[in-house]
Amino acid sequence: MAVKFAKRMAGLKGSEIRELLKLTEKPEVISFAGGLPAPELFPIEEMKKISTMVLEEDGRSALQYSTTEGYTPLREHIADRMNSKAKTNVTKDDILITNGSQQGLDFAGKVFLDEGDVVLCESPSYLGALNAFKAYLPKFIEVPTDKDGMIMEELEKILETTDRVKMIYVIPDFQNPTGRTWPMERRKKFMEIINKYEIPVIEDNPYGELRFEGDTLPSLKSMDNKGLVIYLGSFSKIFCPGYRIGWTCASHEILSKFIFVKQGADLQASSISQREVSKYIELYDLDKHVEKLKEVYKRRRDLMLKTIKEEFPEGLEYTHPEGGLFTWVELPKHLDSRVIMEDCIANNVAYVPGGSFFPNGGKENCFRLNYSTSTDEKIVEGIKRLGKVLKKHMEVKANA
Amino acid sequence: MAVKFAKRMAGLKGSEIRELLKLTEKPEVISFAGGLPAPELFPIEEMKKISTMVLEEDGRSALQYSTTEGYTPLREHIADRMNSKAKTNVTKDDILITNGSQQGLDFAGKVFLDEGDVVLCESPSYLGALNAFKAYLPKFIEVPTDKDGMIMEELEKILETTDRVKMIYVIPDFQNPTGRTWPMERRKKFMEIINKYEIPVIEDNPYGELRFEGDTLPSLKSMDNKGLVIYLGSFSKIFCPGYRIGWTCASHEILSKFIFVKQGADLQASSISQREVSKYIELYDLDKHVEKLKEVYKRRRDLMLKTIKEEFPEGLEYTHPEGGLFTWVELPKHLDSRVIMEDCIANNVAYVPGGSFFPNGGKENCFRLNYSTSTDEKIVEGIKRLGKVLKKHMEVKANA
Repeated sequence: MAVKFAKRMAGLKGSEIRELLKLTEKPEVISFAGGLPAPELFPIEEMKKISTMVLEEDGRSALQYSTTEGYTPLREHIADRMNSKAKTNVTKDDILITNGSQQGLDFAGKVFLDEGDVVLCESPSYLGALNAFKAYLPKFIEVPTDKDGMIMEELEKILETTDRVKMIYVIPDFQNPTGRTWPMERRKKFMEIINKYEIPVIEDNPYGELRFEGDTLPSLKSMDNKGLVIYLGSFSKIFCPGYRIGWTCASHEILSKFIFVKQGADLQASSISQREVSKYIELYDLDKHVEKLKEVYKRRRDLMLKTIKEEFPEGLEYTHPEGGLFTWVELPKHLDSRVIMEDCIANNVAYVPGGSFFPNGGKENCFRLNYSTSTDEKIVEGIKRLGKVLKKHMEVKANA
Repeated sequence: MAVKFAKRMAGLKGSEIRELLKLTEKPEVISFAGGLPAPELFPIEEMKKISTMVLEEDGRSALQYSTTEGYTPLREHIADRMNSKAKTNVTKDDILITNGSQQGLDFAGKVFLDEGDVVLCESPSYLGALNAFKAYLPKFIEVPTDKDGMIMEELEKILETTDRVKMIYVIPDFQNPTGRTWPMERRKKFMEIINKYEIPVIEDNPYGELRFEGDTLPSLKSMDNKGLVIYLGSFSKIFCPGYRIGWTCASHEILSKFIFVKQGADLQASSISQREVSKYIELYDLDKHVEKLKEVYKRRRDLMLKTIKEEFPEGLEYTHPEGGLFTWVELPKHLDSRVIMEDCIANNVAYVPGGSFFPNGGKENCFRLNYSTSTDEKIVEGIKRLGKVLKKHMEVKANA
């Protein structure tokens, strides 16, 4: 067969996380590789009541086609919630419902990127976003980071000297993969720079509400007075990912482009899922649910960091996330986490090797750990197994 | 603000149907513009039971992330159903679950099209597909059609003389917008030509099961022995569109590309919707449900055609669809259905002007009518109103 694919397909590979998840599905493997919320906390009983109720009260509309923008009451709830949590000042008309925030990432690429355009991102950055953008054949420039996230002097240097920067992709709160959060000063400085250069910003914020300690910081969107920030939100981490409900919040000019793109992409999000999520917000207390998640995730984070301290060898570094789902480990420069991963799988423990979070490659001595999905017992046992493997590799190299 | 969008955005406009639907939402308008299934036939009571059952039996998985390919039992049901209805010989491994078949159209564009590549389609063709493809900046060549669909001699002429044909988009069963169906000979001839030129084919078949009369014809996919046909299916027209569950069936080489694209686009279809549709197929009789739809839609088609015959002026033509949702009206060449549409809205009746179904434009004397959504009373009253408007315009022109 002589079928010819589009040029973009040469660069697209399946997400390493998804491929790994397949390898680690064996029950004996303790996997810190995923980025899943804890399923034992899903509000199953509540959703049973709600699904019946939605079909009873509004079944014909819930099962029919509806508007591309999304279900109006849900868009209103999201605007209210953003105004309260992310300190924005938006209305339902600024909101488009998408299939998770992942779809907003794909749309951002589609709306802004021609082949060869430049995307700036944190180094490292969320690989699902990088994969979504890659379909539009951009170049990536990684902005250097430190423990407080993107370094603004480096960003400005790049903007001064680079043509065709079409968008900047950032995760200022509990970043994936590092768990780092930008402090207030960086946010202010970032918005100053952005306003000067007038570059669209994709602010990806699926974890923002999951803060375990310290003060909530205002979103970039809340400081955006030029309509440059496109905010992506999601119910996947604060509620349930199975419904695939997220949203994009942007200025009218930009959002109207996203809506056109949504029409062509799949017409609309699920009519019934939108109503179910909306009804949950009306009848139950989502804030209270999030409090429960935070309590459990904080305990798991604490336990993971404590066990890392006890079980990992000397000479490596890891982050202390103030929220979200991930911590990030850096090994001595000479070690390759992809190589070590093979040994991990043999020892029934798994992480995500860090290399794929760098769009231009070149850094392999790091990996991501997730603490939200595992029970206390598995966290302790898994980190012990991982510690043993790491000690072996660090000793071998030390003796070599 | 100096935000610069991708080049593709200049050509993307909102779907005319969606914009029209907004205009025709007033309750006094009888709209034949949509392409909606009849909501009074949705199995609401059954889905109430099922939604409770899915959450009870499998709640944690139903609300969690899952694999990109889709829920395995649903993929098995779809493969079985295709083998029985579309006469294919496929397994679950040939199936990817998408958000309606619309998402399969977008993915086809993404997988196959570089800027300037050529897409062949029937003239006219489904505008939602044309809009999805347009995002990838192809050229369209419209293959001439007659009452039996695409004319194969014309297709061959085009293939002989055209470079960069990357895919052919067709709807052989009860086409949108014309309602026409390709007879057996055309299907065979088409596959001969395709096998000779080895061009991928998108076979869009959302209406195939809704046949009111005549024999079911084998799908192109069932005649595909070179792995060239990508079959798009959907539960939107035979079940409920609100769940947004469709599928793509293709050879391994091609499907693996679609799966990569799905990962970047939105990770996966809704875990819970997939389980609900799957459970419906297990516990109830989808065939029986489809029989009920066909009975109602056939009656509505018969009534619409009968009323058209009685109420429309002489000198226009319309199709006699053997199934599906649409009939297609052609006016004398000097009339413009967009202009007449304004008069229709003023008289509280609506259709979709035909011009937007031609990707290269140039034909305005036609429109699409939907009969699946309207009650008997509305069909009669709406066609009467439309007949009056048409008579006026045909007389004016005749006297001019």
